[in-house]
Amino acid sequence: MELHLENLPKTVEIGRDSAGTYFDYIDQRLLPGELRIERTRDWRQVVEAIQVLAVRGAPAIGLAGASALALWADSAESLDRLHDVAEEIATARPTAVNLRWAVERALGEIAGERDAGVAACKLAELVARMQEEDEAANRAIGEHGAALLAPASRVLTHCNAGSLAVYFYGTALGIVYAAAAQGKLERVYADETRPVGQGARLTAWELSRAGVPTTLICDNMAASRMAKGRVDAVVVGADRIARNGDVANKIGTYGLAVLAYEHGIPFYVAAPTSTIDRSLANGGGIVIEERAASEVLREPIQGVDVWNPAFDVTPARYITRIVTEDGAFEPGGLFR
Amino acid sequence: MELHLENLPKTVEIGRDSAGTYFDYIDQRLLPGELRIERTRDWRQVVEAIQVLAVRGAPAIGLAGASALALWADSAESLDRLHDVAEEIATARPTAVNLRWAVERALGEIAGERDAGVAACKLAELVARMQEEDEAANRAIGEHGAALLAPASRVLTHCNAGSLAVYFYGTALGIVYAAAAQGKLERVYADETRPVGQGARLTAWELSRAGVPTTLICDNMAASRMAKGRVDAVVVGADRIARNGDVANKIGTYGLAVLAYEHGIPFYVAAPTSTIDRSLANGGGIVIEERAASEVLREPIQGVDVWNPAFDVTPARYITRIVTEDGAFEPGGLFR
Repeated sequence: MELHLENLPKTVEIGRDSAGTYFDYIDQRLLPGELRIERTRDWRQVVEAIQVLAVRGAPAIGLAGASALALWADSAESLDRLHDVAEEIATARPTAVNLRWAVERALGEIAGERDAGVAACKLAELVARMQEEDEAANRAIGEHGAALLAPASRVLTHCNAGSLAVYFYGTALGIVYAAAAQGKLERVYADETRPVGQGARLTAWELSRAGVPTTLICDNMAASRMAKGRVDAVVVGADRIARNGDVANKIGTYGLAVLAYEHGIPFYVAAPTSTIDRSLANGGGIVIEERAASEVLREPIQGVDVWNPAFDVTPARYITRIVTEDGAFEPGGLFR
Repeated sequence: MELHLENLPKTVEIGRDSAGTYFDYIDQRLLPGELRIERTRDWRQVVEAIQVLAVRGAPAIGLAGASALALWADSAESLDRLHDVAEEIATARPTAVNLRWAVERALGEIAGERDAGVAACKLAELVARMQEEDEAANRAIGEHGAALLAPASRVLTHCNAGSLAVYFYGTALGIVYAAAAQGKLERVYADETRPVGQGARLTAWELSRAGVPTTLICDNMAASRMAKGRVDAVVVGADRIARNGDVANKIGTYGLAVLAYEHGIPFYVAAPTSTIDRSLANGGGIVIEERAASEVLREPIQGVDVWNPAFDVTPARYITRIVTEDGAFEPGGLFR
């Protein structure tokens, strides 16, 4: 295959022009039908974009959160409301820790600063650096992860932990891209990932643009592919990783991990170290966002409830390696 | 809860009036939005209804197949083409064995008959008897299965093995209805069952009409419910059962069975004995129907394949009991 990463647009990107700071983002709700890049100077629009899943993916919403703070500072008379605004941004969605991590890093960058204009400038510069760091981390994750794959690997992935989930390149799909560049990748099986369809709408679109052979399956077909010996590795992203290596990620990840374990297939989690929540001993304390029933069932059926958690927690014992920019670790060895 | 089975319509039903034999069926593609009962006298329309999933569910398509043969005989000048027509009906879909079983039983009923009109009459009477037998078998399955459940059971099911999959009452949902009538059922978790949505569109509709408390989940959420201790038993139907107890059923069943096994949750398969294919030593020989990519992905994405098998095979070792009208058996004990 020929890899065409140049066909992948940047997911989120901060910028400055004569009118001040702006934030560009792909409205991912419109994919794969339409590739529309929105430009906003309104921090509230960024928060809303995170909440409605126009911008999603743990690293991308971290960057968007820091960008939102920069937009706010650029339009503020003073920094008096800084901590209230930061808190509103950091709680736009509860599960991915990268959002709070990025907002706190932004707060640290302007600690002691009194001038809103200077703060805005510093924050925009910080976000630009974070973007570069994000891509570099993803490329490192890609190399560390690809080294774990055998030649001609068929990789199954869930949700979208690709370029669309980060600034550029991807975490789980970073491993796919690095393996493809090394000639080690045969095919990706992409779970469609109900109810929002990040696999069907985003991963399939992204991989096809990049030139990676892709087969889309429904979530409930993964076990069958495994049983037929068609899956050599499962590679997914993460929204929050506890100290013991328990991983919160898109709903369905836990079931896949159990199935991979039963079939003797390695299960790799790819994420930057900013996804590790050092305050959590294990995954039991991770808040799981529950979303609207209408995502699952467009027209309600009288007397039928819907349970719609956006994430689940995979215990460390089902995870073969956690791959960060620093290397590939056994889950229990993250802090050794 | 108060059970209201009187709110469930008959899924398929043969009839005779002054104009001859007719066949009524619910067009299940329109549910849950519209309950439309179609009446046809055209055997080809019945075959098409089976192929497009207007009529689905292994026992229901068996009854529909035998009915199609009755409609054909009623419109035929002679029985010369009987075996060709029977073969066309029996191969309308490949996986559920009940279709061929029912067609062969119909052929047996009119073996040696030369008069098409007499054959049509005999076949309509046979189908009417098969309908009664189907309901009686389902009610027996219900009793045998309910006896396996603990009080206040929370049952997870996949696809629709309910009244909509049979003449009346249901196989897996027969167990649910019997348990509900005995006051043993707390709640049903219904997998939405991608890509056709038999759980979201049919099981949720049917259970809500019957008054059974139901929570709809996406297929990829079942593991998470199990991990939280919210599932006491998994109960599913079957499309074909091999002699050793391997079971073909709706895609996703196999993964659920592995997950139930890992979580120590009993996994019950409910089906009439007509679902057992005595010619098959094990599930390896079961033909799995692959359906159109458009069921999974409405708009194709260039360069993205879709794999869309309608069924999978669950090895007997993951199945706790197979529940037929004759009782509940360990999978390996079906022929002891």
